Amino acid sequence: MTGTLFGTGLGPGDPELMSVRADRLVRNARHVAFFRKMGRAGRARSIVEGMLRSDVIEYAMEYPVTTEIPLDDPRYNEILSRFYEEWTEKLRTLVDGGEDVVVLCEGDPFFYGSFMHLHERLKDVIPVQVVPAITGMSASWTATGQPFTWGDDIMTVVMGTLGEDALTQAMAAADALVVMKIGRNLEKVRRALVASGKAERAFVAEFASMDGQRLRALDEVSENKPPYFSIIIVHGQGRRP
Amino acid sequence: MTGTLFGTGLGPGDPELMSVRADRLVRNARHVAFFRKMGRAGRARSIVEGMLRSDVIEYAMEYPVTTEIPLDDPRYNEILSRFYEEWTEKLRTLVDGGEDVVVLCEGDPFFYGSFMHLHERLKDVIPVQVVPAITGMSASWTATGQPFTWGDDIMTVVMGTLGEDALTQAMAAADALVVMKIGRNLEKVRRALVASGKAERAFVAEFASMDGQRLRALDEVSENKPPYFSIIIVHGQGRRP
Repeated sequence: MTGTLFGTGLGPGDPELMSVRADRLVRNARHVAFFRKMGRAGRARSIVEGMLRSDVIEYAMEYPVTTEIPLDDPRYNEILSRFYEEWTEKLRTLVDGGEDVVVLCEGDPFFYGSFMHLHERLKDVIPVQVVPAITGMSASWTATGQPFTWGDDIMTVVMGTLGEDALTQAMAAADALVVMKIGRNLEKVRRALVASGKAERAFVAEFASMDGQRLRALDEVSENKPPYFSIIIVHGQGRRP
Repeated sequence: MTGTLFGTGLGPGDPELMSVRADRLVRNARHVAFFRKMGRAGRARSIVEGMLRSDVIEYAMEYPVTTEIPLDDPRYNEILSRFYEEWTEKLRTLVDGGEDVVVLCEGDPFFYGSFMHLHERLKDVIPVQVVPAITGMSASWTATGQPFTWGDDIMTVVMGTLGEDALTQAMAAADALVVMKIGRNLEKVRRALVASGKAERAFVAEFASMDGQRLRALDEVSENKPPYFSIIIVHGQGRRP
């Protein structure tokens, strides 16, 4: 009589890009849980607006901290760790009591997703199923209207939070490139793209697949800080018959 | 009165992992086209078995050549090029005549997909829409039951068709790794994984998300040639609160 925890990838934002399985799980769910920043609606929750049962019970898992404390401050890991433990306990209790719980995850749960921190703590304790999804980067390269990877292209994904040298090196070695977590790292990312010879071919996609989708060449982006969830795409140019 | 060509990503194989949009396009389509090897059912076509309208008109685009001629033989590109031109012409005629055509694409159309060769030839000639999809690699890392990328992990995708040195170098620089197009390249890929210190953590996923899904550690794979569509996954091990 144990339930199941469903780590349910919702994809990049357009509800029509949810998988058939995710769509069904969401519409039938009695219990849905989702991460969000304190005081925000939550991006994952926004995607399923209008799709939930009228008697759904919602669990907003509000991050106790996001950018107020630097990542390398030991308190950051401590506070987040305690937060994940608390929700691990709550979700375990629900599932042990026979309830299925759908955790709403932006993008693909196992690809740089917050769900992974719950998964690591719960996978050996209760039944957990993960539903993969369309990634934000997939929606971004689709938004460019150009094929992303060809033939033998080497494709690399880097986070803008990396150091500049590491970024430059990884970018130079790639044919096709995705940069995520740009936000306040934009100028560092731009320097690394220039140094690696990729700046001229770089596109910045914001809100790909969503209302407000916007696509620009990198050199048209003059503000210092685009939305945190923008993604940079540099297309590969491999072999083409 | 022109129609639209829909490059429709079907995802990794499980029909439930098709997007809601792809599901609807496929079920409503009057004209569907798909690539396949000569004499085969076609992987993309197999995914939608049982979903098509009874009055659907199907267009099997059969590759004139796959592995009979080496990739670097100039005839290979010539023959394939003629093949794409022929289908470009047929699809253009249909769409110009007011018909919508759904092209069935395994995985995500812009991610190492055959559809890209039609897209390049048709995008400026007729209306073309691309529907992104869950990739085979997403289904593969989900099949491992372990989160794939964490924190600042650098993630790289390489094709087994690359040379051994290029493979080794790209693998060594990556935290999280995907290797596709393995097939007859398995022993070369294995040597590169050993040289880059990643062989011990490598998993081989076959038919991820499909009937016959199979997951093994690389060192359990003794045969020389696993199915061409198997994917190797090496998980990242980034920062974890």
